[in-house]
Amino acid sequence: MTETQYHDLGDFTLQHGATLRGARLAYATYGTLNPEKSNAVVYPTWYSGRHWDNEWLIGTGLTLDPDRYFVIVPNMLGNGLSSSPSNTTGGYAGPRFPHVTFHDQVRAQHDLVTRHFGIERLALVTGWSMGAGQTYQWAVSHPEMVERIAPFCGSSRTSYHNKVFLEGVKAALTADSAFAGGWYGDTPPVVGLRACARVYAGWGFSQAFYWEKEYEKLGYTALEDFLVDFWEGFFLDDRDPNDLLAMLRTWQTGDVGLTPGFDGDTEAALASIRATAIVLPAEKDLYFPPEDEAWAVSHMGNAELRVVPGIWGHFAGHGSNEPDTRFIDAALRELLDRPGGLD
Amino acid sequence: MTETQYHDLGDFTLQHGATLRGARLAYATYGTLNPEKSNAVVYPTWYSGRHWDNEWLIGTGLTLDPDRYFVIVPNMLGNGLSSSPSNTTGGYAGPRFPHVTFHDQVRAQHDLVTRHFGIERLALVTGWSMGAGQTYQWAVSHPEMVERIAPFCGSSRTSYHNKVFLEGVKAALTADSAFAGGWYGDTPPVVGLRACARVYAGWGFSQAFYWEKEYEKLGYTALEDFLVDFWEGFFLDDRDPNDLLAMLRTWQTGDVGLTPGFDGDTEAALASIRATAIVLPAEKDLYFPPEDEAWAVSHMGNAELRVVPGIWGHFAGHGSNEPDTRFIDAALRELLDRPGGLD
Repeated sequence: MTETQYHDLGDFTLQHGATLRGARLAYATYGTLNPEKSNAVVYPTWYSGRHWDNEWLIGTGLTLDPDRYFVIVPNMLGNGLSSSPSNTTGGYAGPRFPHVTFHDQVRAQHDLVTRHFGIERLALVTGWSMGAGQTYQWAVSHPEMVERIAPFCGSSRTSYHNKVFLEGVKAALTADSAFAGGWYGDTPPVVGLRACARVYAGWGFSQAFYWEKEYEKLGYTALEDFLVDFWEGFFLDDRDPNDLLAMLRTWQTGDVGLTPGFDGDTEAALASIRATAIVLPAEKDLYFPPEDEAWAVSHMGNAELRVVPGIWGHFAGHGSNEPDTRFIDAALRELLDRPGGLD
Repeated sequence: MTETQYHDLGDFTLQHGATLRGARLAYATYGTLNPEKSNAVVYPTWYSGRHWDNEWLIGTGLTLDPDRYFVIVPNMLGNGLSSSPSNTTGGYAGPRFPHVTFHDQVRAQHDLVTRHFGIERLALVTGWSMGAGQTYQWAVSHPEMVERIAPFCGSSRTSYHNKVFLEGVKAALTADSAFAGGWYGDTPPVVGLRACARVYAGWGFSQAFYWEKEYEKLGYTALEDFLVDFWEGFFLDDRDPNDLLAMLRTWQTGDVGLTPGFDGDTEAALASIRATAIVLPAEKDLYFPPEDEAWAVSHMGNAELRVVPGIWGHFAGHGSNEPDTRFIDAALRELLDRPGGLD
């Protein structure tokens, strides 16, 4: 595990007006920035993920080889390492943490990349799930900087169905009266966390994944073993409920069309992307279905749709299934061999 | 709305050993039993549905025309009209209501059909969702009686993924401390009911249904309007939480292979079906996907798989979408014109 570093964002005013005073962005880097500053890759985190959860796609023998690329993994605001409900003091602590948009996330990361590292071009932005949303946002917010993008199992605009799925997750978490409107202090709503884990379980993997009992390949010995030890364990593993809800709000309101200047026009925002793209939905992803990404690609100038085949659904991008990992890694390799969109 | 009638089941011993004393089956009938007793159709209810919720598929101009067929709609045990947690007194009241299997449901219905009506053959058994599960169960429990079956948007065995989806529903409902282990008395856990409604919302209709805003065709004016007024309203409409959990348990443990005599062998149970069948999964049903029904049909002797096309997902079988209703009605007509499996 790489050391966590922190970038001071100062008084960071968000798209909706609130100012996070003394905000900071936690991040990790892998590899070395070359003298030309041409080998930088940004690889944002996913819903509740921390930078170390991205490390499966970085390493010797993989496309994102630290001997070749300088990979920056910024932690999302709200994930518990960067400024989040759980680590903010004062007025914006806990459930009063303000609404952070994808645009805000990328603005914070842009500050790190440009002001701290002095990088003007990114060879690649890539990410899974909400990391894919940040990837799209990078390409729309800074078309002049992003050579290539590879969003996997995510979208440029959170679909209505995806919002509904997240409503179920949120409702389950907050139905526990121990949640107490977010004022649970040192006694987190464990019943609600376990309930939201069980709701999530049906969405994270496909119907066929369960039919084939693929969880046995991960070492789980029964369906209930998977639900308790993987899923409930996942949400009990240092996941703060207010943090989860802050990230969920970012997710639900995701839409590159809401980037300043586009006035809600998602298609125009997609058309503004200059980056060379390979867009990688998973075949049986239940909340980011391939059709939605086909729609996005149809509005982009230089984008290829490449569906990750198989039955792992959304978790094809989690790094737990070797064939999916190889497929995504190969796509990154091919994309990095193509000319960037700024040439 | 047809008058509710009641059939006395007496002391009804369930598959798992408990005896519901003074049990009763609520039902409604449509049309007239002919002198040969050859025009009877059984059309069981779905999860939380009552007999009047099935009436969209019965009527003049439809296949199930009361002038031609005698349609019996038995209410599932647990649905609040037949013996259920909410109307049982004594030891088995409320959360102590015993485990009822699909086999039990059909045994109760068989008692009504044979002992009360003196019917020996059924022209058709059909039903939506858990009603489809009961349809399969009829064909396995009484192959000698069932001429034809048309299960729509349901299955002969509840898949693992389907069980997981239901775990999310259950966890959301019971996360509300007002649920109190089922001892909520006259103050139902409305937060939990609304949470389970929001969980259900993502599953009931397909991703494309939400993308296309099909709910507007039902008169809902915004996504949140649909979530609150349709979905939360649905679960608050006289749905008792213990009843919901009793039916959910029946559903989760559904498997025709658990019929006495088959020792858990679902495929053997499917192979034992004599009825002529048209099996109707919906194209984008998220918890009863067509693949599962293709599997079932592959083990049946005289069954056709006919996928209901479109984007309504599971609710293709709810009677709210005219093209789906026409499709299902036409399949019933065609099936009833075919020779029954007992000829």
